[in-house]
Amino acid sequence: MAMVGGGVGAFIGKVHRAAARFNGDVEFVAGAFSSDPVRSREQGAQLGLDPARAYGSWQEMLAGETALPVDKRADFVSICTPPGSHFEIAKACLGAGFHVMCEKPMTRNAAEAEELAACVARTRRVFGLMHPYVGYPTVKLARDLVARGDLGPVAKVVVQYPQGSFRRIDWTKPLTPRQQWQRDPRVHGISGCMSDIGVHAANLLEYVTGLKIRAVLSDLARFTHGPLDDDGVALLRLEKGARGVLLASKIATGEDNGLRIRVYGEKKALAWREDAPETLTITSPFAPAETWRRGAAYVAAASAAAARGTHLPAAHPEGLHEAVANTYRNFCDTIRARQARRRPTALELDFPNEKSGVRGMRFVEAMVASARDGNTWKKV
Amino acid sequence: MAMVGGGVGAFIGKVHRAAARFNGDVEFVAGAFSSDPVRSREQGAQLGLDPARAYGSWQEMLAGETALPVDKRADFVSICTPPGSHFEIAKACLGAGFHVMCEKPMTRNAAEAEELAACVARTRRVFGLMHPYVGYPTVKLARDLVARGDLGPVAKVVVQYPQGSFRRIDWTKPLTPRQQWQRDPRVHGISGCMSDIGVHAANLLEYVTGLKIRAVLSDLARFTHGPLDDDGVALLRLEKGARGVLLASKIATGEDNGLRIRVYGEKKALAWREDAPETLTITSPFAPAETWRRGAAYVAAASAAAARGTHLPAAHPEGLHEAVANTYRNFCDTIRARQARRRPTALELDFPNEKSGVRGMRFVEAMVASARDGNTWKKV
Amino acid sequence: MAMVGGGVGAFIGKVHRAAARFNGDVEFVAGAFSSDPVRSREQGAQLGLDPARAYGSWQEMLAGETALPVDKRADFVSICTPPGSHFEIAKACLGAGFHVMCEKPMTRNAAEAEELAACVARTRRVFGLMHPYVGYPTVKLARDLVARGDLGPVAKVVVQYPQGSFRRIDWTKPLTPRQQWQRDPRVHGISGCMSDIGVHAANLLEYVTGLKIRAVLSDLARFTHGPLDDDGVALLRLEKGARGVLLASKIATGEDNGLRIRVYGEKKALAWREDAPETLTITSPFAPAETWRRGAAYVAAASAAAARGTHLPAAHPEGLHEAVANTYRNFCDTIRARQARRRPTALELDFPNEKSGVRGMRFVEAMVASARDGNTWKKV
Amino acid sequence: MAMVGGGVGAFIGKVHRAAARFNGDVEFVAGAFSSDPVRSREQGAQLGLDPARAYGSWQEMLAGETALPVDKRADFVSICTPPGSHFEIAKACLGAGFHVMCEKPMTRNAAEAEELAACVARTRRVFGLMHPYVGYPTVKLARDLVARGDLGPVAKVVVQYPQGSFRRIDWTKPLTPRQQWQRDPRVHGISGCMSDIGVHAANLLEYVTGLKIRAVLSDLARFTHGPLDDDGVALLRLEKGARGVLLASKIATGEDNGLRIRVYGEKKALAWREDAPETLTITSPFAPAETWRRGAAYVAAASAAAARGTHLPAAHPEGLHEAVANTYRNFCDTIRARQARRRPTALELDFPNEKSGVRGMRFVEAMVASARDGNTWKKV
Repeated sequence: MAMVGGGVGAFIGKVHRAAARFNGDVEFVAGAFSSDPVRSREQGAQLGLDPARAYGSWQEMLAGETALPVDKRADFVSICTPPGSHFEIAKACLGAGFHVMCEKPMTRNAAEAEELAACVARTRRVFGLMHPYVGYPTVKLARDLVARGDLGPVAKVVVQYPQGSFRRIDWTKPLTPRQQWQRDPRVHGISGCMSDIGVHAANLLEYVTGLKIRAVLSDLARFTHGPLDDDGVALLRLEKGARGVLLASKIATGEDNGLRIRVYGEKKALAWREDAPETLTITSPFAPAETWRRGAAYVAAASAAAARGTHLPAAHPEGLHEAVANTYRNFCDTIRARQARRRPTALELDFPNEKSGVRGMRFVEAMVASARDGNTWKKV
Repeated sequence: MAMVGGGVGAFIGKVHRAAARFNGDVEFVAGAFSSDPVRSREQGAQLGLDPARAYGSWQEMLAGETALPVDKRADFVSICTPPGSHFEIAKACLGAGFHVMCEKPMTRNAAEAEELAACVARTRRVFGLMHPYVGYPTVKLARDLVARGDLGPVAKVVVQYPQGSFRRIDWTKPLTPRQQWQRDPRVHGISGCMSDIGVHAANLLEYVTGLKIRAVLSDLARFTHGPLDDDGVALLRLEKGARGVLLASKIATGEDNGLRIRVYGEKKALAWREDAPETLTITSPFAPAETWRRGAAYVAAASAAAARGTHLPAAHPEGLHEAVANTYRNFCDTIRARQARRRPTALELDFPNEKSGVRGMRFVEAMVASARDGNTWKKV
Repeated sequence: MAMVGGGVGAFIGKVHRAAARFNGDVEFVAGAFSSDPVRSREQGAQLGLDPARAYGSWQEMLAGETALPVDKRADFVSICTPPGSHFEIAKACLGAGFHVMCEKPMTRNAAEAEELAACVARTRRVFGLMHPYVGYPTVKLARDLVARGDLGPVAKVVVQYPQGSFRRIDWTKPLTPRQQWQRDPRVHGISGCMSDIGVHAANLLEYVTGLKIRAVLSDLARFTHGPLDDDGVALLRLEKGARGVLLASKIATGEDNGLRIRVYGEKKALAWREDAPETLTITSPFAPAETWRRGAAYVAAASAAAARGTHLPAAHPEGLHEAVANTYRNFCDTIRARQARRRPTALELDFPNEKSGVRGMRFVEAMVASARDGNTWKKV
Repeated sequence: MAMVGGGVGAFIGKVHRAAARFNGDVEFVAGAFSSDPVRSREQGAQLGLDPARAYGSWQEMLAGETALPVDKRADFVSICTPPGSHFEIAKACLGAGFHVMCEKPMTRNAAEAEELAACVARTRRVFGLMHPYVGYPTVKLARDLVARGDLGPVAKVVVQYPQGSFRRIDWTKPLTPRQQWQRDPRVHGISGCMSDIGVHAANLLEYVTGLKIRAVLSDLARFTHGPLDDDGVALLRLEKGARGVLLASKIATGEDNGLRIRVYGEKKALAWREDAPETLTITSPFAPAETWRRGAAYVAAASAAAARGTHLPAAHPEGLHEAVANTYRNFCDTIRARQARRRPTALELDFPNEKSGVRGMRFVEAMVASARDGNTWKKV
C-alpha cells in the first residue's frame, strides 16, 4: 500500500491506513503527502515509512516504486487528496500499473469520471472507490434481504444524509484549507453538498435496493458562503416503478453524520442508520418489528457478505473502521485474485468501483442540472 | 357537547367523547350517529344518551336541540362523519347557532373550505378543526422555543407522516365502508393521502415553525387501488427563505403513525416524533443534545402552553387522548370566553380553527395541481 | 363513584376521576376532600358535584349516600387520601356497603392489610388497589406471553423503580404537606420508599411472571431526611427456583418514573419500561429482537387482556390514564357482575385487589425486617 | 509485540493484534499459539510471522526472543491463553524482562494475583490487564465528569453485565474446548460468571466513580451445567457511604454484551451502555437530559483522556477495537516512557494494571465467600 495525500493530521488518511492494515495482511510501504517535497518526506518519516519510500511528490513516488522489483513495490495506491487531483493522480497511477483505491467523490464531474473509468478498463487495473457505508455488515445484510425478496417489490425509498458541519464554522475567522477547497469549484467540482455526501446517499440507495436511480428532480440551496450548494433534496424515480426521496445537507444544525435509509417494500420495510450501525430494523404490517444485530448467527445465515465483514461477537460494537476495512479487504482480495489469475468471487467484488463512481458523478450532474433548470426532471 | 357521526365502534367518535370529557367540565348530551334513524337512536342509547336526545338524524338533532331552552341545549357539535358531509353539516350547525368542532379534513376541497370559513365569520361561532398533534405539550413547547428564538432563523424543515395502513388491507376481500369512502372522491375529495394525513404534516410544520408554506412542488403516487393518491412527497418553499420537504404515505409498509418533524435553525435544531411524544430533542453544534421531557419544571418555565396541557408528572406517560383533550379544552374555554363576553386569551385560542382548515385545503389543492401539472411549483 | 381525598390540586384525584369516567359509563357523584368541612364542600363544588353531595367529611358522605335510595347512591368509593387513613376509611366504606378502590399502599403495615382483607371477605364487597402499571396493555401482554410459555421457565427477574423525586426537594424551605407525610411513619407506615414505589415493583414482578416472591434479603438506605428509608435493593427468591433483584429509590437523581422490568426465561426474555409503555421487547438467543406494539393485530391475537385494554390504533400513543382506566373498567365490570349476580370473567377480575395489597404489605415488612436484622433472608 | 495464545480462529487474539497495531506504531513480531509445537508454528506462519519467530511454545519464545539483540526482540508479550495459565506465563515473561499485557481474569484466585503483582513490582516491568471497556472515550469522559464534581457526591451505583451466551449452547452436543474450560475450576478458577464478566462490571464501577468497593453481599447461582456459578447479584458498600448493586449473568437469555452502568450523584446522574458506546447520558432533576457524543468539541474540552482516545469525527461510529487500541496505546506509551527514562503522564498511565487485577480477584473471592457463607457481608 502506498498513499497520496492523507498525511499527518488528516483524519481520512489515518482511517485508510488503519483500515487497510486491519486484517493484518497489508503493509503501508510508501507515500507522498504534500505538494511541498520537504514536508512530504517529513510526514512520510513521521508515519514510519522507510525514508527511501517517503517521497517528495506523487510523481516521484510512481517513478520510485516503478523502479523497484515487482515483488518489492507497492501493489496499490490509496488516493486521499482533495477531489480536484483525483483524476490526474488516479490516471497516472493506473498508467504506471498500480491498482487504485480512491476517496470519493471520484472526480469533479461526470466527464472526468467516464474518462477515468475508461482508463481503468484500458489498464485492466482494480479500482476501488471509498463509499465506506456499504462496508457495514448490516448494510450488506439489508441488500441481501432485499435481494432475496424478504421485502417484496420495493415501492418507496427515503434516504437522508443530514450533516451540520457547516454550522460549526466560525465565519468571522479565516477558513482552513479544507474549508476553502470544499467551496472551490476548481477543487470540489460542480457541487458542494451533493459531491461530498449526496453521492454517499445515492450510492447507499442503489446498493441496498439493487435499483438504479433513473431520474431526479432536485432543489439545491446555499445557506452559507461560497458558490456551491450546501443543501439539497430530490424527488427520485427508480427502476421498476419505485420512487424515492433523497436529502443531503451540510447545514443541518446539530446533526453529525446522520446518514439513514428506509426502504418500503410491498411486504416489509427496513430501516438503517449510520449512527446505530450495529442493527438493522425490519418492520411488517403483521408482525412485531425485528431488530437484527450484527454478529448474530441468524445474520450470518441470511448474508454471507455480512458474516464475512463481521469481526466481533454481537454487541461488542464495531464501527466505521471495520466498514472501511471490509471494503479494503474485498478490494485487496480482488487484487490478489487477479494476481493469482483467478476470477474474483462475488463476495470479493463487493466494493464500490469505477462504475459506482461514474454513476455517482452522473447523479451529481443531474442534481445540479435539475436545480439549475427550474427543478425539472433529469435522467441519471 | 353533541355529536354527529362517530357512533359505537367508530374509534374517532370515542376519542372525541373521551377527550372532551377529560377535563371534567363537558357533558356529552346529544347526538346523531347514522343515516338510518333507527340505528342512530339505538347507538345514542348505547352511548348513554337521554333517549330524547339520541336523535334519528343530524337535521332532527339541530331541530331538537334548538327547541330546548338555551341553558339546556348543547353548546357545540362535534362532527365525526366522513369528510364528504363536513361542509353541509358544519354550515347547518353554525347556522343554527352551534359552535363546531370538526374532524379533518375540513372539506373536500378549498372552495368548500373557504365558504365554510366565511360562514364561521358570518355566524360568529367558534370553529375548531381536529389536528390533534398540535395538542401535544411537547409540540407546543417546540413552537414556543422556535418563537422565542432558541433555534435562530429556521433554514430547513423535514416533516414526514409515513403510515402503512393500506398495506394491511386484504385486497382479495370486500373493502369496509371506511376503506371504500377513503377511495371515493365524492366523499374524500380531491386527494387520498394528502387530505387524510398530508394536511396533518403541513399543519404541524406551520404550527411549530410559525412559517407559512408559500409553494409546493409535489410528486404524488398511487401504489394501491382507486382513483386517489396514496403516497406523496413535496419540496417546499416557506416564508423567510426557509425550505422544506414533506412526505406522507399510506403505503409505508410497517409504519403505524410515523408523524415526525425536524426543524433546523441557524443555531439549534429540534426533532419530535408522535410515537415518542413525551420528549422533544434539541440539538446544537456546540453542546450535548438535550431531551426535554413533558412534565418537567423547566418545560413549564419555557412554555406556558405546554404547562397548561400537562396532566401527569414527567415519565408517567401521556398520549393522544390528552392531546385531543387539550385541543378541546382550549376550544371550550374560547366558547366560554365568548359566552362571558370577554376576549379569549392566546392560550385559549391555541387550537386549529377554520383558517387552519382553509390553509390545509389550499395546501392539498396545490399538491394535487403540482403533481398533475408535471411536478411544477404551485403557490399555496 | 364517590371520592375521599384527591381534591382540587391533587394530581392523583384528578387521575382517578378522569380514568374512571374514561369509558363513559361511570359518573362522579359525591365526595369529601378535606378534613376541613368548609374546604371539603367548596372543593366538591369546584369539581362540579351537586352541592348536596359535596360532603364536609367522609363520615358525613357515608351517612349521606347511605340515606339515598339504592339506585341513586354511589356504587363505590375511591380513596385517595394519604396512606395513614386508608385502613379506617376503607373499613368504614366496606361496612357501609360500598365497594372500594384504594390508592396504594393499601395500609401502613401488614397487620392492617390483613384485617382489611378480612373485612373485604366479610362484607363481600369488591376491593380494588390502584397499581396502575398492571393496567398497561403491554404489561398484560407480557404476563400472557409468560403464561403461555413463550419464554420457557423463568430463571431471573430484574425489576427497578428508580425515581429522583426527593432530589428535587429544596431542603432549605419548609416541606409541603405531602412531603411531610411521606416522611411520617404515623401516616406512611413502616417504610418510605418500599411502601411508596417498592410495592409497585414487587406487584409488577409477580403479575408479569406469575411467580410469588418467596423471600427477600434487602439493603435499605436513607440518603435524605426523616426516619424512613428512601432507597433500597433486594435479592429475591421466587417460586420454582427463579431468582431476582428489586431496586427502588427516591434518590435516583435525574430519574422520573423509571419503572422497568426484565424477565429472563430459559428460551426467551422480555423487557418493559413505563416510560416507553407502548412496546414490549422480546429477545431470544437465536432470532432478531422483537418489538411488539400495542394496538397491533398480532398483540390482540396473543392477549385478550391487552386487546380489551386498547383504545387507540398502534402508534397513536396511550399512557397512564388509559392504564388506570383499564383498571377501573375491570373493577367496575366486576361490580356490575356482582350486581347482576353473575360470576365475573377472568378478564373482568384482572385488577389488583385486597390480596395484592396483603402481599404488598408483607413484602414491605419483609424488606424492613431484613434490612433491620443485618441483611438476612426473610420470608414474604 | 509477541503473543501467547490467541491464534488463528480465536477472536480475542485477533482483537489484540488489530488493536495493538491500530495506531501504526506497534509491530506483531513473534508468538506461540498452541501447546502443540507443530500447530503453534503453523499458526504463527499463517498469521504472517517470520517463521523463525513463530515459536513452538511460549517457553521457546521467551528463550528465542531473549537471545535476540535488545533492539530486535519483542518489547512486550500479550497473553491470550485461557486464565489457568496466565499466572505461570506472566511470571515467566516478567522474569525474562518482557512487559506484559494480560487478558482478564488476571489469575484463578487472589493469592495468585497478589503474587503476580509482587512479581511486577520486583521486575519493574509494565503490566496491563485487558478490561477493554474503560478504553471507551465515553467511559473516560464519565470518570472525568464524576471526578470534577459534575454529579456531586455519588450516592448510588447500578452496574450490570447481563449476557446470554450460555443460553446459546446446545447441551445435547459435546462442548467446545472453550466451553469446557469455562466450566473447569482448574482453568477458570474459583468462579465462572464473576471471574469472566463480574470483574469487568466491578472494574468499570471503580473506574468511573473513583470509589472502591468496600464490601459485598452476594447471591450466586448456577442455572446451567458445571461446578461454577453462571449468574450472580451483589449488594455493594462503596467508599464514602455510597451504595451499589452489581449484576452479572451468563444466562440472561437474549442479551449479548449488556454491560451498562448508572451512577446517581447528589446533583446529577450518568448512564452508559456498551451497546451504545458513542454517547454518555447525563440527567439532572432540573434540566433536560443531555446526550454527550464522542468526538464533539465539548467532550474534548471536558476530558483530555476522551479526546486522546478519539479517532473519528462524531457519529462516524467507533467501537470495541478502538477501546482496546486506546488501552494498548497507553500501555505502550508507558513502556516507551520507561524506555526513555521519563515518568509516564497520567494520560499514559490510564490503563488497568496489576493493581486492578488484584482488586478484581479480591472482588471475586469476596463474592464467592459471601454466597458460600449464607449471603453475608465480605470485605473486598
